[in-house]
Amino acid sequence: MPRDIHAYISSGKARIETKLKNVLSGKSIPENLHESMAYSLFAGGKRLRPVLLFASYDTFAKDKDKPLKTAVALEMIHTYSLIHDDLPAMDDDDYRRGTLTNHRKFDEATAILAGDALLTYSFELVAQDVRLTADEKVAVLQSLAKASGSEGMVAGQILDMEGEDHALSLEELEEIHKLKTGQLISFAITTGAYLANVDVDKIQHLEQYAYYLGLIFQVQDDILDVIGDPDKLGKPVGSDMDNEKSTYPNLLGLDGAKQQRKQYEKLAKEALQKAGATDSYLIDLLYYFSQRDH
Amino acid sequence: MPRDIHAYISSGKARIETKLKNVLSGKSIPENLHESMAYSLFAGGKRLRPVLLFASYDTFAKDKDKPLKTAVALEMIHTYSLIHDDLPAMDDDDYRRGTLTNHRKFDEATAILAGDALLTYSFELVAQDVRLTADEKVAVLQSLAKASGSEGMVAGQILDMEGEDHALSLEELEEIHKLKTGQLISFAITTGAYLANVDVDKIQHLEQYAYYLGLIFQVQDDILDVIGDPDKLGKPVGSDMDNEKSTYPNLLGLDGAKQQRKQYEKLAKEALQKAGATDSYLIDLLYYFSQRDH
Repeated sequence: MPRDIHAYISSGKARIETKLKNVLSGKSIPENLHESMAYSLFAGGKRLRPVLLFASYDTFAKDKDKPLKTAVALEMIHTYSLIHDDLPAMDDDDYRRGTLTNHRKFDEATAILAGDALLTYSFELVAQDVRLTADEKVAVLQSLAKASGSEGMVAGQILDMEGEDHALSLEELEEIHKLKTGQLISFAITTGAYLANVDVDKIQHLEQYAYYLGLIFQVQDDILDVIGDPDKLGKPVGSDMDNEKSTYPNLLGLDGAKQQRKQYEKLAKEALQKAGATDSYLIDLLYYFSQRDH
Repeated sequence: MPRDIHAYISSGKARIETKLKNVLSGKSIPENLHESMAYSLFAGGKRLRPVLLFASYDTFAKDKDKPLKTAVALEMIHTYSLIHDDLPAMDDDDYRRGTLTNHRKFDEATAILAGDALLTYSFELVAQDVRLTADEKVAVLQSLAKASGSEGMVAGQILDMEGEDHALSLEELEEIHKLKTGQLISFAITTGAYLANVDVDKIQHLEQYAYYLGLIFQVQDDILDVIGDPDKLGKPVGSDMDNEKSTYPNLLGLDGAKQQRKQYEKLAKEALQKAGATDSYLIDLLYYFSQRDH
């Protein structure tokens, strides 16, 4: 059967959403907090990180259920980061994906606490996962904390804020993306392979692949802000240009940004070849990310 | 040698502070974020939770270093909760222990992220702890996440905020304290004993002890707000009375609150007897909490 990346993404999305509902319903959480957590978890996320984790795992192993709770934990961390990023003190966004942001739907205090609770619960979920050995749980927890904390995603968010008031070089831009979004993408890919018992050498190549995949995602994000269709994106375009944000098109021009994307594609593909994983959904995801229109 | 609770607390405080400096200095964290995290970690905390963990552990075991990283993780979670609680959207406090709160010293965005980073790092620290087996790490991580998350401390914070606009019953007040501050105190006591290989039955009695110890801490907090010395407390008194907050004295009168404290002492002592742990710093801590003047 030929691979169908769209069907694969849809089915991964369905699996993660079923599990998300499942894990949240079993908790004894104060009503308002519960609603706020659930609101953002089910606010139309694309579930790309869980799908990446599944794709990496499925490339090397069969038992589909093993990475499920880790994927849920990953999506919870991503969701918490969006809730906190949207706060008035940070990006001050009223809408995300066409619906009210958490602090606009509830209030700031509830949004802060819902984020805190999702972050905390993600670690609890992995610690409780009966499908993993204690060693596996520890390895996953350590990677997840490192990827999302003060040397990972949170570091990226601070540097992104600090970089807003001056022009960045390509290297600085890549460093911020590597931390802010790249670390969780890298976690998805490397942890999927780890849970499938892939050896360390291969995982290092997959980490390279994940790095370029994250940059492809970002450069395409920036390109879509220039030439994307607002209806498909569910948000206005051109905002990056207006506020002179450091983006690939602002830094390299539109054609330069497209060239850069092509370069990242090449490097991602090479890394995947070294990992012996070109005959998989991972290669399809590379082109999917590169060509996406929303 | 007779036990000296003041010397024991001082030495526990010194141990945890040395270790806190140590774990933070080894990280590659953006400068501003690092400063913000360190600022609140070293803003004059009493380190009561780590000391409780040490006291519980030392009652049953010898190797002093085993619970050290867990204690650091616990103090980081406590610190993150203070940073987020002080935010304008929450309690909106400018000062804590006589120094500027994190968001007043830095800014709101940095304070939110410093809290997020401390919370995340606490889990990483336990996952990395070479003194614990994988099974021990998993048990500690699971308890820590449960105690601090949406069924624990964060739940208590939400319920506390929701309870501010109406009078609470004694039972409701106890439930909020049990979650908001009691869960981390309970974690300290039960995890200290767990790491010392104490059996489950005894740990259940210690959990009871921890529950009443937490309530003693709170009732004394409320009593000090009425009759305490502002100089010793490092904050003004009488504020609870003014804003008609649900406190023990407001609910039971000052004498009633003192009676209630006595009742909690009795119950805590009974639980400690059942755990066979009355000849220890745990009994001293009970009276220390009950008689503290700051």
